[in-house]
Amino acid sequence: MTDNSQHVIRLARQEAMIQELACFEEASDSCHATVESLTKSLTFEPSDTTPNPTPGFAKTFLATIPASTSTSGKEEIAGMGLFFYNYSTWKASPGVYLEDLFVRPQYRRQGIATILLRRLAKEAYDVSGGVGRLEWNCLKWNENALKFYAEVGGERQDEWVGIRVDGERLRKLAGLE
Amino acid sequence: MTDNSQHVIRLARQEAMIQELACFEEASDSCHATVESLTKSLTFEPSDTTPNPTPGFAKTFLATIPASTSTSGKEEIAGMGLFFYNYSTWKASPGVYLEDLFVRPQYRRQGIATILLRRLAKEAYDVSGGVGRLEWNCLKWNENALKFYAEVGGERQDEWVGIRVDGERLRKLAGLE
Repeated sequence: MTDNSQHVIRLARQEAMIQELACFEEASDSCHATVESLTKSLTFEPSDTTPNPTPGFAKTFLATIPASTSTSGKEEIAGMGLFFYNYSTWKASPGVYLEDLFVRPQYRRQGIATILLRRLAKEAYDVSGGVGRLEWNCLKWNENALKFYAEVGGERQDEWVGIRVDGERLRKLAGLE
Repeated sequence: MTDNSQHVIRLARQEAMIQELACFEEASDSCHATVESLTKSLTFEPSDTTPNPTPGFAKTFLATIPASTSTSGKEEIAGMGLFFYNYSTWKASPGVYLEDLFVRPQYRRQGIATILLRRLAKEAYDVSGGVGRLEWNCLKWNENALKFYAEVGGERQDEWVGIRVDGERLRKLAGLE
């Protein structure tokens, strides 16, 4: 895996990627993300307009092409990896859970997903002193993605199944109806 | 689902449950949790000896039998649910991921797991304004657990498979060797 030195990975500031992310998420009818709801719930790095990181529940690494090397002369956002810190009781350690990995269509097949995964692996290593995990989920029918994930060292957790309670079922379990 | 009013659910303070948790986790050879590593990585509620919650990556709800109703005359810890906040980009909202659910053997078959799940569902509801999820993983061979989880409203996410990178694979992906 060779990183393309044209790309820079940095944490997202609020102004740079929120619109991008909302546009990406809005691609699906079942998505409820808006600029407002994302702004309220995500953590951002300091910027000129927001000097301190806002509190939030997930962070985003952006793969960018710096202004100095982009064809447009402006920094371009090529992809993103949105993550939060998870926890393993057995390891007694935090790790990184990758919630969304996205590379804009015009920047695909340049190794950007790999660069983002490498940076996320470094984050998982650093936050855990080396004992933690980088984890994510993949749709079982997405064979190309599964092949790619195996190549970067991802091991399938086939013995586990996810369980989810949301919507009316969550209200009911919470004793709210 | 009827709650047993004999039980009280509260967030863990440091002194009350850390030894308990370490003993539980030590049941397995593959577990690396110690009192020290759990203390360092978990969030605890204020107590007489630790006035402010310590920063950490996961919280714990304890199911307790208050001193006033326990046979020992002291508060007894019957079970625990260790969780962290996860995030859904599509929902643009945090939720709750249940990492460990445990009821001490002598307190089983009293509905304590259900009470803990109800409290966790309330937490997921509250942190998300109602749009979030309560999620966890279950081993596929654990038929009794799967049946119980279906009864409380859990939906299997069979179309997804977990991917994990850790140990030497994490070091390699992080570019550290």
